[in-house]
Amino acid sequence: MAVRADDIGFGGLTLLQDTETFCYGVDAVLLADYCKAAASDTVLDLGSGNGAVALVVMGKYAPASVTGIEVQEDQVRLARESAGLNRLEDKLHFLQGDVMEIRKLVPGESFDVVTCNPPYSESGRGLASANAAAFIARHETTAALADFVKAAAYALKPGGRFVIVHRPSRLPDIFECCRACGLEPKRMKLVLPRPGAAPNIILVSAVKGGGKELLVDPSLCVRGEDGVYSDDLQRIYGRIPEE
Amino acid sequence: MAVRADDIGFGGLTLLQDTETFCYGVDAVLLADYCKAAASDTVLDLGSGNGAVALVVMGKYAPASVTGIEVQEDQVRLARESAGLNRLEDKLHFLQGDVMEIRKLVPGESFDVVTCNPPYSESGRGLASANAAAFIARHETTAALADFVKAAAYALKPGGRFVIVHRPSRLPDIFECCRACGLEPKRMKLVLPRPGAAPNIILVSAVKGGGKELLVDPSLCVRGEDGVYSDDLQRIYGRIPEE
Repeated sequence: MAVRADDIGFGGLTLLQDTETFCYGVDAVLLADYCKAAASDTVLDLGSGNGAVALVVMGKYAPASVTGIEVQEDQVRLARESAGLNRLEDKLHFLQGDVMEIRKLVPGESFDVVTCNPPYSESGRGLASANAAAFIARHETTAALADFVKAAAYALKPGGRFVIVHRPSRLPDIFECCRACGLEPKRMKLVLPRPGAAPNIILVSAVKGGGKELLVDPSLCVRGEDGVYSDDLQRIYGRIPEE
Repeated sequence: MAVRADDIGFGGLTLLQDTETFCYGVDAVLLADYCKAAASDTVLDLGSGNGAVALVVMGKYAPASVTGIEVQEDQVRLARESAGLNRLEDKLHFLQGDVMEIRKLVPGESFDVVTCNPPYSESGRGLASANAAAFIARHETTAALADFVKAAAYALKPGGRFVIVHRPSRLPDIFECCRACGLEPKRMKLVLPRPGAAPNIILVSAVKGGGKELLVDPSLCVRGEDGVYSDDLQRIYGRIPEE
């Protein structure tokens, strides 16, 4: 392990990351931002890794609590250390376990919001990495997309929100998995590397028991025409104030 | 009827339209453009109205043939008159009938491309118009989205392409209907009224028996920041040459 302490840019919170395994990227921040948690919400993050999404959600929205579930023990330990370092042990909880066994970990219908930044590569695709932690974080080795969505549907209260970040290529799979579990896609947003480009990230928000009608938000450009991070992105990162 | 002859802007073709019932809009042109028919393709347009999509596809791509199916007799008559006016009776065919009875109208697995600009409003939503033709064109009165998709799946050759234009709010329904019929969504494009806006039109292309992997194209802006029709739109309308 090569642990580094990073200022996440919200609420003065610090995240411990093992630079030899996995460090969070823009996807985690976009997901945390898109979940729009309220102060009274209980939030669950599936596949919580080192706790990046949980910590950014806490820093941005200060919800009642954020619980993370992660299969890798090293990452869970690191996430708990981050919670302690920020004196948030009473609001940030990290459980070690497999999302496929969520019934053993948390009660059903107990969360207002479930977030998920799942592995992007399908099982069997891509080369196995020498770095097991990085490989598990990026590939559907332990759980597939459908397993994460099923876990979310179990954990959410009726009317609760499931928010996921993924690659645009999986959009039909996300919609199918959601509807199969009674989660209705209600909002979606494309994220483009620059104006006029094809999107490389997608955000979807689905409501448990929601009515059929999808709202497609204006797309987000990570960088402007000039190659500099866009104002929209810097607002999400808390570097410039919200409008 | 108040019939008007419009130059469609492609191949010097003229379209007869009844200005008292229904005239085609940007959606029809975007659909015709997105179908990318090859010269050897046989094309079927479901809910062909006055023949606008069929004629624009013919003007843009000059495929082997375009067949339209439309339930409203007046519109079919007008479309046939347009075919005659352009001396395209041998390549443009219009059949009067309900897409739900497509098996009586065309043989199965006989088309390379199926296009569809279906009614946007769901059955039972919106006020019934005094103008029956306009109401049928805009509402799912005679056939619903699932019926159009089923008809397309029946008519397409294996490997053939179904291309549909609709409102973004129906994207999960489009994906679900397509997959239920063995049509896999392979490409999609959002259309925005202006840069930075939420999309108000969506284009989806699905392949019969295709593998799972969606490509999301760069979005199209109808107008630029200056409020003038964008170069991309003018290219689609044939007003400036393709790149």
